[in-house]
Amino acid sequence: MRFVTFEQNQRKGLAIEVNGELRGMMEGAEGYPGDLLALLQQGPAALQGAFHTLAAAAPIEEAAIRYLPPIERPGKIICVGLNYADHTKESPYEQPDYPTVFPRFASSLIGHQAAIIRPSVSEQLDYEGEMVAVVGKGGRNISLERALEHIAGYSIFNDASVRDYQFKSPQWTMGKNFDSTGAFGPRFVTADEVPLGGKGLQIKTRLNGEVVQQASTEDLIFSVAELVAIISEVLTLEAGDVIVTGTPSGVGFAKKPPLYMKEGDICQVEIEGLGILENPIAS
Amino acid sequence: MRFVTFEQNQRKGLAIEVNGELRGMMEGAEGYPGDLLALLQQGPAALQGAFHTLAAAAPIEEAAIRYLPPIERPGKIICVGLNYADHTKESPYEQPDYPTVFPRFASSLIGHQAAIIRPSVSEQLDYEGEMVAVVGKGGRNISLERALEHIAGYSIFNDASVRDYQFKSPQWTMGKNFDSTGAFGPRFVTADEVPLGGKGLQIKTRLNGEVVQQASTEDLIFSVAELVAIISEVLTLEAGDVIVTGTPSGVGFAKKPPLYMKEGDICQVEIEGLGILENPIAS
Repeated sequence: MRFVTFEQNQRKGLAIEVNGELRGMMEGAEGYPGDLLALLQQGPAALQGAFHTLAAAAPIEEAAIRYLPPIERPGKIICVGLNYADHTKESPYEQPDYPTVFPRFASSLIGHQAAIIRPSVSEQLDYEGEMVAVVGKGGRNISLERALEHIAGYSIFNDASVRDYQFKSPQWTMGKNFDSTGAFGPRFVTADEVPLGGKGLQIKTRLNGEVVQQASTEDLIFSVAELVAIISEVLTLEAGDVIVTGTPSGVGFAKKPPLYMKEGDICQVEIEGLGILENPIAS
Repeated sequence: MRFVTFEQNQRKGLAIEVNGELRGMMEGAEGYPGDLLALLQQGPAALQGAFHTLAAAAPIEEAAIRYLPPIERPGKIICVGLNYADHTKESPYEQPDYPTVFPRFASSLIGHQAAIIRPSVSEQLDYEGEMVAVVGKGGRNISLERALEHIAGYSIFNDASVRDYQFKSPQWTMGKNFDSTGAFGPRFVTADEVPLGGKGLQIKTRLNGEVVQQASTEDLIFSVAELVAIISEVLTLEAGDVIVTGTPSGVGFAKKPPLYMKEGDICQVEIEGLGILENPIAS
């Protein structure tokens, strides 16, 4: 199942995609099944029920909607750094033997096709294509064996990073949380539609059509299952929590000369089976 | 005005404190003004109105309630590290000339008198007494001159940190986000009740009655006003966002030998004019 959260005429809606066609309902309409976060909180049957309801709803014209992040206000946005060996090598860090976790706040999120904003205070806006795993069933101290039962589905993220701000202090939070830099979407794809654990999917980032990152999610140092197990040793994962699994090598910061994003650029992150997240860059 | 968020018989309520006495109402009761987050989102008049409503409500027996964090699910919990010079000196870090920001997720929060849980996986549970500034009016690119207009009030935090997990990777997030380690409360105190910017308040942490941290909020490297201005250059601050301003020197990690918290201990953080946040430690 593929879900899309959108806005039309200042109202929010939820759609499903079947055979490239969207069908959906607006919040408040009779029979509206709830937003994706509410459905994830209710569990798999609710998601399945919503799919059937929406499959019978009116078609939605893609040109008439604005994509929103699949989940607009996740309880937690847990980002993992240094999770592809080649990327760690191009960074100023050694490979840690534990996940490098930093946060995004929901205030930084935007949807597919919305502009990633390069702030006026920096010229160092960089792309980071990443696969997202979305928590379904919550839990604490989840075993590695059962970890993937807690992942409801997958999506795509462009973790656009303002590098000079990222490195102004020992913690990366600020450079990772500029407004309108966390692109997320376009779809939430349920776990049954991709290989177990989202493994072995090709991930590619293109800047103005040129491939700048290319890898397989097979190469994640900490797999989705391992991340669920390790993170839940520390904290309770909750339905709708989002794990942004890390970016492969090829970031603009590491290129010589550096390749940063600027107004007018188009950045795409494509993940096999999940689609293409595309965002223009604006100032 | 002093507000307390609490639970009684599995229901939530909001109370005010006047002359050491609590008066409050339960969620769902007729005339209930809303929770503190909703009131902050509505603005100062709503807060004032709630105060008057609750002043006429029934007295609440403190012994019969469980304190909750004043705001249970802040949109952002923005923690500032290395914000007292003496603490930076006892840490393994140089003093950065920009705030060191790390997150807490709401899943780690507990209220006054709830147990801070030492996880079974670590013996390095440390205290960190801190002053909290709570955002009232939201905004982006807030000027230093107007910054304090955006702070609705203050509270107390014990940013209990699992040190070995904090330093397992370059980012501190995991060691700062164990369940039941972020103690917050007991009261939200409106800004008019303390000196401008919460400056010059004595802050003390006691472990089993012994003073282990003692400082003045005058010594914050980045004042509350500066934090609002600097952080809002990056992101939109929203009503109910919480800024945890940093801890002074004296943390257990830096003592020789180290002084960690263990089951049966009692940790108190006292801030002049804001009260005492007390939490037992459990396993």
